[in-house]
Amino acid sequence: MAQELVAAVLCGEERAVAQACRLIDDRRPGVRELIDALYAHAGRARLIGVTGSPGSGKSTLTAGLVAQYRALGQRVGVLAVDPSSPFTGGAILGDRVRMQRHFGDASVFIRSLATRGAQGGLSRSLEEHVVVLDAAGYEVILIETVGVGQDELDVGGVAESTVVVVQPDMGDDVQAAKSGILEIADVFVVNKADRAGADRTALELEQRLELGRAASLSSEPSGTSGAWYPPVLKSVALNDSGLPELVAALGRHRAWLDTPVGLGHAEARRQASAERLLFALICERAQLILGSELKRAAERLAKRELTPHRAADELIELLSGRKISAS
Amino acid sequence: MAQELVAAVLCGEERAVAQACRLIDDRRPGVRELIDALYAHAGRARLIGVTGSPGSGKSTLTAGLVAQYRALGQRVGVLAVDPSSPFTGGAILGDRVRMQRHFGDASVFIRSLATRGAQGGLSRSLEEHVVVLDAAGYEVILIETVGVGQDELDVGGVAESTVVVVQPDMGDDVQAAKSGILEIADVFVVNKADRAGADRTALELEQRLELGRAASLSSEPSGTSGAWYPPVLKSVALNDSGLPELVAALGRHRAWLDTPVGLGHAEARRQASAERLLFALICERAQLILGSELKRAAERLAKRELTPHRAADELIELLSGRKISAS
Repeated sequence: MAQELVAAVLCGEERAVAQACRLIDDRRPGVRELIDALYAHAGRARLIGVTGSPGSGKSTLTAGLVAQYRALGQRVGVLAVDPSSPFTGGAILGDRVRMQRHFGDASVFIRSLATRGAQGGLSRSLEEHVVVLDAAGYEVILIETVGVGQDELDVGGVAESTVVVVQPDMGDDVQAAKSGILEIADVFVVNKADRAGADRTALELEQRLELGRAASLSSEPSGTSGAWYPPVLKSVALNDSGLPELVAALGRHRAWLDTPVGLGHAEARRQASAERLLFALICERAQLILGSELKRAAERLAKRELTPHRAADELIELLSGRKISAS
Repeated sequence: MAQELVAAVLCGEERAVAQACRLIDDRRPGVRELIDALYAHAGRARLIGVTGSPGSGKSTLTAGLVAQYRALGQRVGVLAVDPSSPFTGGAILGDRVRMQRHFGDASVFIRSLATRGAQGGLSRSLEEHVVVLDAAGYEVILIETVGVGQDELDVGGVAESTVVVVQPDMGDDVQAAKSGILEIADVFVVNKADRAGADRTALELEQRLELGRAASLSSEPSGTSGAWYPPVLKSVALNDSGLPELVAALGRHRAWLDTPVGLGHAEARRQASAERLLFALICERAQLILGSELKRAAERLAKRELTPHRAADELIELLSGRKISAS
């Protein structure tokens, strides 16, 4: 059955892709073999991150990007990262509502990722989902992440190019810098650009980017270093305005990733991404192996019968004394 | 020296506390012994989380809460969780700017935590900082977290009581639900309540909370189940308006944590928090032990010479064959 599933995913069969995604979410037996079998066939997709704070309109913009890439004849996958919600017993379907215009299009695959709360669980799940969609022949994979925080910086590392969506009047400088978005953006989009303050917000962003450049140690004149300077675009995603320009900017970034400086950048990202995935998988295995001992130690820790590092030492010693069993 | 530092922290000496925090950030030798030694003296502080999206004014509100608790004669610690920024080479000082009014007050200790990007690194660092401040006798510890996302949900678990700060007109329902804030809040505050839409936002929040209650399986009539119903307050943190009421609501939540239902809730949180800390410490040890092998495997993975789960199996086998060396 596993081999059949692998074959069906490689043929791009939507139901097989959905089944593979469920296996990842549920950590079912067989998921390890599945991912490993698909891995050799992945690595071709264009991975684009779309991120920004709630209310910036990034779901609408993501839906718009799907339409743009579909018009270019590309098969598109969308992975939307949502916090799991006890209210609904899982990921909330907001993105799906916004994506409705793409339902029924067999060349678009949309998946909401529940984060499940486990440390590294999101990285692992996301990277595995990317492997599946990539191997299934989706040429563009859009990764939409919620919120602005460490989380997002982490998730941003999976994509080759990251679009940061901001809205006009995003708040004062301190807030903008604090959110850490300046560092992860390859392309900025001021969305809802028909609202007041869009030009000012775009200008402020550009000024902050300039400051960042000036502060960096590089003394090379701009344009000769081969570095990428994130453009600041404007859009009204609701009516697709500005989206062709965004696709063009992403194309330029993709081309830059093939230049000498860009190649180094892309390689560093791939390396970091691989390290993160491996680390998450190792942590997952450690947790599986230690299982009840970890819970028991935590109980004693919570009662202050143990100290944290002593407990961790004991657990890791327990781990080193054991062989891992096959999943 | 380590013992001297422990003693000085226990006496609440500010310089010693700061030194201990630096040891945690830099993962210096001795940090394990330090945390373990302080752990027995921790567990008394009142841990309050303050979270909300950028621009909601939660830093201002946190500063206001400091003033409120100071007026009650309490020593207050503040831990602000910021994403690390390559622009500044570390945590951004925005919070500190906003906290300025408390500089020079020896009974207030403020610390910005850089997240450093490592998986679980934030949980570990945060929990260790809490141990230090708690052992140093800060009676109230305010944990301010950036953004809304998985991250925050995670961090929220460290606090006994979590305040979620929202601003008027926080966007449509879908966004509000998506951000996952309804589930983590023990108290809601609509800040900037002098702006238009504050009443509507408060009402919407209350309605969503009602819906959530109705959707939950509990058939007990409201008020008899002993459950906590998060109140929705309003504030203008800039002029301290609404903050005494917030402190009162937090007091009621603290009292509820001592009721039968509340106790179970508090215990579950402590257990989850201990598990998270232990898991993070185990992952940290695994990473230390595997070090260069992890990097090498990631390199081969990035070049697709390996598959992820096969590589992880090999690494965990390597780990189980090794003894951990003392830090």
